[in-house]
Amino acid sequence: MAETFHIGFILFPALTQLDLTGPAQVLSRMSGAKLHFLAASMDGVPSDCGLSLLPTGTFAAAPPLNMVCVPGGAGVDTLISDPASLDYIRRAGEGADYVTSVCTGSLVLGAAGLLKGYQATCHWAWRDLLPLFGAYPVEDRVVIDRNRITGGGVTAGIDFAFAVIERLRGRDEAEMIRLALEYDPQPIGMGGTPSTARSDILQGLRRRYDAIGVPARREALVRIATILNVTAT
Amino acid sequence: MAETFHIGFILFPALTQLDLTGPAQVLSRMSGAKLHFLAASMDGVPSDCGLSLLPTGTFAAAPPLNMVCVPGGAGVDTLISDPASLDYIRRAGEGADYVTSVCTGSLVLGAAGLLKGYQATCHWAWRDLLPLFGAYPVEDRVVIDRNRITGGGVTAGIDFAFAVIERLRGRDEAEMIRLALEYDPQPIGMGGTPSTARSDILQGLRRRYDAIGVPARREALVRIATILNVTAT
Repeated sequence: MAETFHIGFILFPALTQLDLTGPAQVLSRMSGAKLHFLAASMDGVPSDCGLSLLPTGTFAAAPPLNMVCVPGGAGVDTLISDPASLDYIRRAGEGADYVTSVCTGSLVLGAAGLLKGYQATCHWAWRDLLPLFGAYPVEDRVVIDRNRITGGGVTAGIDFAFAVIERLRGRDEAEMIRLALEYDPQPIGMGGTPSTARSDILQGLRRRYDAIGVPARREALVRIATILNVTAT
Repeated sequence: MAETFHIGFILFPALTQLDLTGPAQVLSRMSGAKLHFLAASMDGVPSDCGLSLLPTGTFAAAPPLNMVCVPGGAGVDTLISDPASLDYIRRAGEGADYVTSVCTGSLVLGAAGLLKGYQATCHWAWRDLLPLFGAYPVEDRVVIDRNRITGGGVTAGIDFAFAVIERLRGRDEAEMIRLALEYDPQPIGMGGTPSTARSDILQGLRRRYDAIGVPARREALVRIATILNVTAT
C-alpha cells in the first residue's frame, strides 16, 4: 500500500476546467493519491465553460501538500493580483515535494516566485511570458526541472499527469492507468501546435485571440509582473 | 454567427468526471454552442475523484436540447435504476438532433431505449454489455450511426467531441479548436486498449477490476436490463 500522497489543485474563477479535470482524473487513479480541490472560499468556482466546480477545502484550512498543481485560464490575471491567494500558493509550493502546473498555471507559479531559475512550459500562446517571472521557457508538452513539473496547454495536462505517475510510481502503474482510462488518442486532422497546424488555421486563431482580448491580457500580465518584481534578487 | 446549439450534459453521482469535462471543454469552443449541465436536482454532484460539479439546471426545467451527452462511471447502475432520470434522458434524446455518450454512458442511452438497432461503443471493459439494450457493439474510439455518436472509455470523450465539431462545423473549425487546446497528445509507454497494452498490464488491471467489484456491477446491469426489457419489440 503506497503512503498517502496529498495533491492540491488550485481552483479560481474562470479557470480552464480541463487544465484541472484532466490531470485530476488521471492522478486520482494513482496508488495512495488523495486529491484536494482548494479555493479562497467554499463557494462553487465558475470555470470558463459554464461548469462550476466545488472546492473540498479552503486555502486557509488546507493540509500540507505533497504536490501542488495550478491550472490556467482567463482568470489567471485576477488570481495573481490577489496577494492572499498568491501567498497561499507560494507557501504551499515551498512546502511541497512537487510544484506543478498545466497551461498558463505556470505563470501563476512564476508570479508566486516558484519558477525563478527553473525551466518550464506553458500554453504555446503564453509561453514567451515566462521570463517575466524568471523562468526559462521550453517548447515541450511536459517539462521536468528538478521538482518543478509543468504541462503545456489544456490537453497537455493529461500527459503531464501520466508523467507524474511514471516518475512517482513507475512505468507499469502509468500504463495500467492508461489502459483503464483508454488513453489511445486519435486526434482529427492536423495540428495541435503552432508548428504542426496549417498556417491559415494558426493565423485564424491568432485573429480570434486578438478579437477576444488576448493582447490586453498579455499586457496586464506584464504590468502585474513589473509590480510583483519576482525576478529581482 | 452560428445558430445556438444547445448541448445538455447529464450529471449523476459517481460519474467519471473526465467523461464529461473532456468533451465539455472541447465543445464549449464550438461556434454557437451553449452548454447545459443537467441533474435531478441543483445540488453539487460528487464525481468519482472527489471533485463535485454544480448543475446549471434540473432535468425538470431543462430547455429543449439539440444534443444530449451522457457520461459514464460507477454511478451508471444507480442512474438507470431511477425511472424519473431515465425517463428524462429518453425524452431529451427523442427530442434531440444528436444522442451521444462517452464511456459507459452508452449503457445509459441503451437503458433509455435510445440505442435499439444502433451501432455504438463504450469503455472496452463494458462494451460487450451493449446488446443487453439492443445495441450493436463496435470496437472503435468514436462510433457514428445516423444521429447516435458514442465515444469509448474516458479520454475518448475528447476525440468524440472533436468528431462532433468536425461533423457540425467542418474540419477547419475542429483543427482551430485543436490548436487552441494544444491537442497534440504524447502518451507514455504502450497500451491504451486491450489489444495494444502489455498482456501483464491487462491481466493486472482485470485483477484490479475484480477486486473493486466490477463483476458485481456487470451482474447488476444484466439484472436491470432484464427488468427494463428494452430489446423487446
